[in-house]
Amino acid sequence: MNQLGKEYELGQGNSSGVEDAVDAVAVEEPLQITVDGTPVAVVMRTPGADRDLVSGFLLSEGLVDSLNQVVNIDLERQLNHAYVFLADDVVLDHHRLSRNLFSASSCGICGKASIEAIHCQAPAMDSDLVVPIEVLLALPERMREAQAGFEHTGGLHAAALFSVEGDLLVLREDVGRHNAIDKVIGAAVAGGIDLSRTLVQVSGRVSFEVMQKALVARVPVVSAISAPSSLAVDFARESGQVLVGFLRPPHFNVYAGRERVKCGT
Amino acid sequence: MNQLGKEYELGQGNSSGVEDAVDAVAVEEPLQITVDGTPVAVVMRTPGADRDLVSGFLLSEGLVDSLNQVVNIDLERQLNHAYVFLADDVVLDHHRLSRNLFSASSCGICGKASIEAIHCQAPAMDSDLVVPIEVLLALPERMREAQAGFEHTGGLHAAALFSVEGDLLVLREDVGRHNAIDKVIGAAVAGGIDLSRTLVQVSGRVSFEVMQKALVARVPVVSAISAPSSLAVDFARESGQVLVGFLRPPHFNVYAGRERVKCGT
Repeated sequence: MNQLGKEYELGQGNSSGVEDAVDAVAVEEPLQITVDGTPVAVVMRTPGADRDLVSGFLLSEGLVDSLNQVVNIDLERQLNHAYVFLADDVVLDHHRLSRNLFSASSCGICGKASIEAIHCQAPAMDSDLVVPIEVLLALPERMREAQAGFEHTGGLHAAALFSVEGDLLVLREDVGRHNAIDKVIGAAVAGGIDLSRTLVQVSGRVSFEVMQKALVARVPVVSAISAPSSLAVDFARESGQVLVGFLRPPHFNVYAGRERVKCGT
Repeated sequence: MNQLGKEYELGQGNSSGVEDAVDAVAVEEPLQITVDGTPVAVVMRTPGADRDLVSGFLLSEGLVDSLNQVVNIDLERQLNHAYVFLADDVVLDHHRLSRNLFSASSCGICGKASIEAIHCQAPAMDSDLVVPIEVLLALPERMREAQAGFEHTGGLHAAALFSVEGDLLVLREDVGRHNAIDKVIGAAVAGGIDLSRTLVQVSGRVSFEVMQKALVARVPVVSAISAPSSLAVDFARESGQVLVGFLRPPHFNVYAGRERVKCGT
């Protein structure tokens, strides 16, 4: 049993009744993130990669532009609490938290305004990265092989960063799919990976927020086992990103950047 | 095509290349909720049942105790913006928003503190409602039959309220699973349904927040197609709720309230 799952006594039932059993459940615990003394968020997450999660959250929410701006992330001071300290010359701008960005749009609120608000912070990409179809079709299997927690609990989302050649670079799991992406971004940036040559594969669906996090981290390609939302598609198209959904070999859909998904040569 | 989905031109691919296609995508748009002039949240939701969503959000987040405290929800004033007006004697208490509740826990932050914080607002239930196994096993099929949007888009979560006899009372769909639950709660309370004799079935996983919303609305039973998180299980056990997961007939797991899941007589 790894720390992603925790065993519980429970009942397993069918039409004739319920019997005793023990099964692993995905761990969910709150993590409070405090930046220079100001609480900025409480995230419900699976413990175990908190430094990656906090780093990724700070980057993908636009609270910092680079991890060089982060002097320390103290995870030891208090259980389930991350104390972040920024460099002296960096001032925390609460209004950059995406939830505030939306409501600050001067023209009212709509999908278009939400996209524009993010683009003020992270401009559209000008990437010419081509995604070979053979690489794409291999991703679900490669991700599943590397997923430790899902097998145990059936309750964890995964996000995985791959090179455009299909090599797995980073994989993280979490009860929250946005957390899984933040963990991947945090680990990749800390590890010095050039995200502009990568693609991120997610186990579930793709919302606006998933595309936003990928854009802020400058990941040009997002691919998913399940469906994207309309705003995720609109966002990807206006942000120069490739968005693949329903990636269930041998089939897949390309919702954005179709000209950059090609058979290899 | 209903308003839950929107058609997009896209590419459908396989190992030989990508071809033109048109497919429906689940609609995601922001909704800003402003209560008595104060913006309290921006929710990314599928439009179409905004009054239910806002009513349910106000109730399940504990911002109001009853819809009698809500004088008006004005959805016409501005696109994607709900202006809520409370009765004169009701004062908006921001600290009741769950995200603030967590961080206000005096003993630090942990799963236990999160549960206790919710119990200050909504005490544990003292329900003796028995769930017949035959009713339980019929829920996934009944919910799927009633789901309009999923068939079109493959990208919508559903929540459905059933009587303990297995009759479908309310079903709502949304790109966000918490929104789907809020819509169901809002519609049910507005419709005068006695929630203490119902169970809510959800299409996906069960997080802490799902159990919290059910408790605040006084729904004693939550059942799900997929996995619960550890904190959802802990919460259900300490709140007197029944929690069923992995409901995939003919099998299911009972994570909490096992003594109240029985074969009918």
